[in-house]
Amino acid sequence: MKLCRIGDAGQERPALVDGDGYIRDLSAHVADLDGAAIGPEGLARLAAIDPTSLPLIEGPVRYGPPVAGTRQFVAIGLNYADHAAESNLPIPAEPVVFNKWVSCIQGPNDPVTIPAGSQKTDWEVELGVIIGSTANNVSEADALNHVAGYCVVDDVSERAWQIERGATWDKGKGFPTFGPVGPWLVTADEVGDPQALSMWLDVNGARKQDGSTKTMIFTVAQIVAYVSQFMTLLPGDIITTGTPPGVGLGQKPEPWYLKAGDVVSLGIEKLGEQKHQFV
Amino acid sequence: MKLCRIGDAGQERPALVDGDGYIRDLSAHVADLDGAAIGPEGLARLAAIDPTSLPLIEGPVRYGPPVAGTRQFVAIGLNYADHAAESNLPIPAEPVVFNKWVSCIQGPNDPVTIPAGSQKTDWEVELGVIIGSTANNVSEADALNHVAGYCVVDDVSERAWQIERGATWDKGKGFPTFGPVGPWLVTADEVGDPQALSMWLDVNGARKQDGSTKTMIFTVAQIVAYVSQFMTLLPGDIITTGTPPGVGLGQKPEPWYLKAGDVVSLGIEKLGEQKHQFV
Repeated sequence: MKLCRIGDAGQERPALVDGDGYIRDLSAHVADLDGAAIGPEGLARLAAIDPTSLPLIEGPVRYGPPVAGTRQFVAIGLNYADHAAESNLPIPAEPVVFNKWVSCIQGPNDPVTIPAGSQKTDWEVELGVIIGSTANNVSEADALNHVAGYCVVDDVSERAWQIERGATWDKGKGFPTFGPVGPWLVTADEVGDPQALSMWLDVNGARKQDGSTKTMIFTVAQIVAYVSQFMTLLPGDIITTGTPPGVGLGQKPEPWYLKAGDVVSLGIEKLGEQKHQFV
Repeated sequence: MKLCRIGDAGQERPALVDGDGYIRDLSAHVADLDGAAIGPEGLARLAAIDPTSLPLIEGPVRYGPPVAGTRQFVAIGLNYADHAAESNLPIPAEPVVFNKWVSCIQGPNDPVTIPAGSQKTDWEVELGVIIGSTANNVSEADALNHVAGYCVVDDVSERAWQIERGATWDKGKGFPTFGPVGPWLVTADEVGDPQALSMWLDVNGARKQDGSTKTMIFTVAQIVAYVSQFMTLLPGDIITTGTPPGVGLGQKPEPWYLKAGDVVSLGIEKLGEQKHQFV
C-alpha cells in the first residue's frame, strides 16, 4: 500500500494511492495515519479495504507528511562511504546517530526556508524508515518486523550550524521546514528489499545525487537494531538513513549551497518524488 | 501553581498541589496537562479555580512527568563553568545543544535502568524549562514569556555512549528511563527569578552536587532565545539547562559511576525533589 495524508497543513486527511494512481480517502476507516494506525494490525485492517470502495480525492492536492504525530526523528550520518569521503570524515566504525527536531517535519513539496543569514543550506536525499511497532533492543534478524514502511526524506542541513557551532550536529538539522517527508508511506511488503532502491536528487534540474541504498555502510536492519540499543523506537518514529555522495558540501572544486529560488527535486525507486522550492 | 500528574504510567490524572501541600484532582477541569493545557490561557483558567473546590487525592501516589506529550526534549551541555572544567572541556563560546529522546521521559521517582553492560551511568541535577507557547526566533527580552514553568530533571547519562561512540552525544542521553522529570511543573510566576535557585543531588545520602542556577554560563532567557534560532519550540517541550559540578565523571581521584541498588535523590529550591533507585 501507498499511504498518504492530503490537505492543508495540520488538517490532512488519511488516504491511499490505488493501483491506478488515484488518491482515495480513508477518513471513514481511520481518523489519521498516526503511530497507532500504522502498526501491524492497523495496516492489516487498511489492506483489507477494497480501494475502489473509497471516495476519490480529485484535483490538485497538497501532500502532508505521510505519518502524523512523529515523536522521534532519528538520523544516521555518513552512512555511504563516498559521502563520508566527500565530507572529509572517516568511514564510521559504527552508525553515527543524531537528531532532527520533529517540529521541522513538513510535506514533501512545501517550500523550505533558508534561515536568515544562512550561507550553507544543503540537500540530502535519504531513505526514511517509518517504525510501526515499539522497538527496544531488537535483534538485526527481528528489526524489519518493526518497520511499517519507507518514505523519501530530504535531510536539509545548515552546514555551518551543524559543524561549526559546537559539540553536536543537532543545531543544523532541525530548523523549521528542514524535514520534508513523503509523499507516501509505502508499506514494507510493497517495497521488498530496502537495500536495492535507486535514488537521485536534482537542483534546478541538474543531477547532483545519483545513488542506491545498496551502497549503504549499515543496512536498514542493522540501523534499526543498533539504534534500539540506545533508545526506544515508537510507532510513527522516522529514521532517516544517510545520504549518498553529491551534497553541496561535496561539490568540486568547492562547496556550493542553496539560495532562494532554487528548486530541489528528489526521489527514490518505489517511494515517489518530492519537489520543493527554497525561499 | 504547582501542577502535576498522578497515577500509573500512561494513565495519569492532572492535579495541583495546594498551598497546604495537598494534592487535588483537576480532571474535571482539564483532560490532561499537555502542551495545550499549559499555554497562557490554559494556565489562567486553572489559576482561576479555587483549589479547595477540587477533590483531594489521598494516600500514596505516583507522580508522572508533570507535562504530557512532550515532543522535544532539548538539552544544554556544559552550562556551568565548573562542570565544564571537571569534564575537561573548554567553556563553550555559545550554548551546546543536544537531544534527549522523548521516549526516555518518566516520573521523578520511577526506577532508572542501568543499561546492560553499562560501566558509566551518571547523574546530573538540572533545571528544566517547560515551554508554554510556540517560540521561534524570539528575543532574549521576550523569551521568558514563552515559559510555562520549571521542573527538576535528572539528565541521566551513559558517558561511554555519550563521548566514546561517535560524532554526537545523543546515544548516551536518551536510553529508556534516563529522563526523570518532576514532580511538579511550578508556574513561572511562582518561581520568580530562575537564576536564583539552589540545587543539590545526593547518591546514597552523600552530597555530590551542591550548586545554584546563579552560576549558569547562559541564562534561561538566553537559552530559550538561542535555541529558538535553530528550531521551533512547541508547547510542552522541555529544555534541560545543564548541571553544576559534582557528576560521577568529575569525581576525584577518579570518575565514579552508578551501580544497581544506588539511590539518587535531588532537588531544586521551589521545585521539589526526586528520589529514584538505579536498577
